[in-house]
Amino acid sequence: MPIMGPSTPAAGDLARLRQHNERVVLAAVRASGTPRVAQIVADSGLGRTAVEDVLATLVARRWLVEERAAIRGRGRPARSYRFRAEAGCAVGLDIGAYSVRAVLTDLAGRVLATTRRPVSPQTRRRDRLAAADRALADCTRDAGVPERRVWAVGAGTTGLVDRAGRVVRANAIPDWAGADLAGHLGRDGRLVLVDNDSQLAALAEQRRGVATEAADLVLLHAGRRTGLALVLDGRLRRGAYGAAADLSALPGLSWEPAIEYLHAVAPADVPVADRAERAFAAARDGDRRARTAVRRYARAMALAAATAIAVVDPRMLVLGGAFSQAADVLLEPLGAELARLCPQVPELRASTLGADCVALGAACLALDAVDERLLAADRGPLPALTARSV
Amino acid sequence: MPIMGPSTPAAGDLARLRQHNERVVLAAVRASGTPRVAQIVADSGLGRTAVEDVLATLVARRWLVEERAAIRGRGRPARSYRFRAEAGCAVGLDIGAYSVRAVLTDLAGRVLATTRRPVSPQTRRRDRLAAADRALADCTRDAGVPERRVWAVGAGTTGLVDRAGRVVRANAIPDWAGADLAGHLGRDGRLVLVDNDSQLAALAEQRRGVATEAADLVLLHAGRRTGLALVLDGRLRRGAYGAAADLSALPGLSWEPAIEYLHAVAPADVPVADRAERAFAAARDGDRRARTAVRRYARAMALAAATAIAVVDPRMLVLGGAFSQAADVLLEPLGAELARLCPQVPELRASTLGADCVALGAACLALDAVDERLLAADRGPLPALTARSV
Repeated sequence: MPIMGPSTPAAGDLARLRQHNERVVLAAVRASGTPRVAQIVADSGLGRTAVEDVLATLVARRWLVEERAAIRGRGRPARSYRFRAEAGCAVGLDIGAYSVRAVLTDLAGRVLATTRRPVSPQTRRRDRLAAADRALADCTRDAGVPERRVWAVGAGTTGLVDRAGRVVRANAIPDWAGADLAGHLGRDGRLVLVDNDSQLAALAEQRRGVATEAADLVLLHAGRRTGLALVLDGRLRRGAYGAAADLSALPGLSWEPAIEYLHAVAPADVPVADRAERAFAAARDGDRRARTAVRRYARAMALAAATAIAVVDPRMLVLGGAFSQAADVLLEPLGAELARLCPQVPELRASTLGADCVALGAACLALDAVDERLLAADRGPLPALTARSV
Repeated sequence: MPIMGPSTPAAGDLARLRQHNERVVLAAVRASGTPRVAQIVADSGLGRTAVEDVLATLVARRWLVEERAAIRGRGRPARSYRFRAEAGCAVGLDIGAYSVRAVLTDLAGRVLATTRRPVSPQTRRRDRLAAADRALADCTRDAGVPERRVWAVGAGTTGLVDRAGRVVRANAIPDWAGADLAGHLGRDGRLVLVDNDSQLAALAEQRRGVATEAADLVLLHAGRRTGLALVLDGRLRRGAYGAAADLSALPGLSWEPAIEYLHAVAPADVPVADRAERAFAAARDGDRRARTAVRRYARAMALAAATAIAVVDPRMLVLGGAFSQAADVLLEPLGAELARLCPQVPELRASTLGADCVALGAACLALDAVDERLLAADRGPLPALTARSV
């Protein structure tokens, strides 16, 4: 049965087809490094003529670079194509109570620079925002890229953030509620995305951490602060009112003060900021009181995590935050408690992304936004690349 | 800047474009009833020639019916097109402890027949399956459609169902665990989808109940059994291991025995099956003991619902199950408790779908599967319609 009628497709339809093919070819090249034409034809499912044609356009518009390599024993060099990931950059910021961190990546997500600036909970709002600006500027300087090549900025911060990128609530920083992060960071027209820090840590784990093969995960943030965040179907789950995974009003959890179990076993002269680490070290050395304290702490954290697990049934629970570095003494009691509390215990892993995890998640958010703007279908033909294409 | 190169698209690309256009036109017609060509052109974004051509094909393949109506004062009748929803049917089954219900719909989801057959928890597995077969047959007979026009069957049942459509666990029916529902209902090659009954009730609320404008909802099933189910982003959230919204192992909830508060206030000679209804009636009449019992019941249910709400932050909480008919006395204390327990209280509504809600959700699931098979992109050209096209 013939599947085509006798008609000729209209010009508008062909333009749409063409734009679709541009995205398909670009995605095929990005997915496989530096593929040759035959590979792109195979991966895209398009005809060779169409692929050659789109490739020429994408090279002319500076999205792709053509590379030629002589194949041994043959006269003609093989042509392959590379996505020009250096055409633009994204910056991820982590604006916290004690530090501002920045990560700069190219469009492929490769980290080109990281910086950190210390602040304190008492740092005034204006100065914290200025620290963020300087962290961003430090990154571009260290990476040797002009600031205008930063196409998008993602920012994570403690507390609740609204859809407009303003901080609604932030218990850890006195004058932070009301800060207009999107307004400040996007003041020269740059694309800015703002989100809660635990949520961005969860996104980072799913995109480039220990949870890349899990579409659904719960992140348990364990550190000076505690928190939960959800990634479902590969996307951050923020909730209808931005309050997803906020268990603060549920009775019987009492996980937020649980850090006191750890603080109580360290000698009185150890500063508060170091006590938890000391408790973990003592537990590691077999100290009985410290091991009991870690077990109590784990029990309280497990109850909160189990609540989220029972509701969404994720494939993985990731232990994040500073205490993920004590995974060797924390994971075992955490897993034992979860086995008691969950009909299905998800796989349990500790983050390995370290202190930059929130900034990395913020960069992922910024890169997603760039992709969405530039590479999604129904956005018209891909533009010619200049220094600022977003 | 010209967006087209000088090349001619390959035949394969044109076939794909054609298939895409077929779906777009079919979706445009389905979305707007009986549109004229100009409307379809506007809604689809395609050119008129392409639309005319695809319409002719879809009429020839019996997906669409062309209708001509004379416009007053003009000579030429206006052509409009209607989706032939009567071409196929879907059946939704609710296989429960006390009854088997069936709903038969056309491809547009219009209900053509409903039936109910009584069973009991002690009914043997073989007989319960036979009751499901008879309920389905009764429906087709009542609607006057041949059984072969049933393209897909959805089935909801109590307990945990695995991906293969087998019952894994069913506390409410002694010999039900192990029942191969998909195998039994699909034995003559029919498309069969099986899911948990509370989940299908949630789907029904989102598609055709009180939650059609909410992409995210939590359903609180209140009745002889209790349960929770999630719809997120318009889709059932089953969880990575099929255990989403299963709070049975969390401590401190004790919502499952809460129905005893209601049972305790009815006179001793009232049969158990009628006691809750009697308690609600007494509360409605202002009886103080009954009102206290309803409040206690609502408090226990609210704690379970609040747990799910705190985790996923849905737009709406729907009170479903048989007790949704007591919404006039239940909603107020439920809402008051939720306000205490949730940082963000979602909108609270009672189901109005009645006893057929699970069967309706099952029919929705079956219709989704038909759409997915026939109408999704990348499935090749739409087939010519015969009695059995799935």
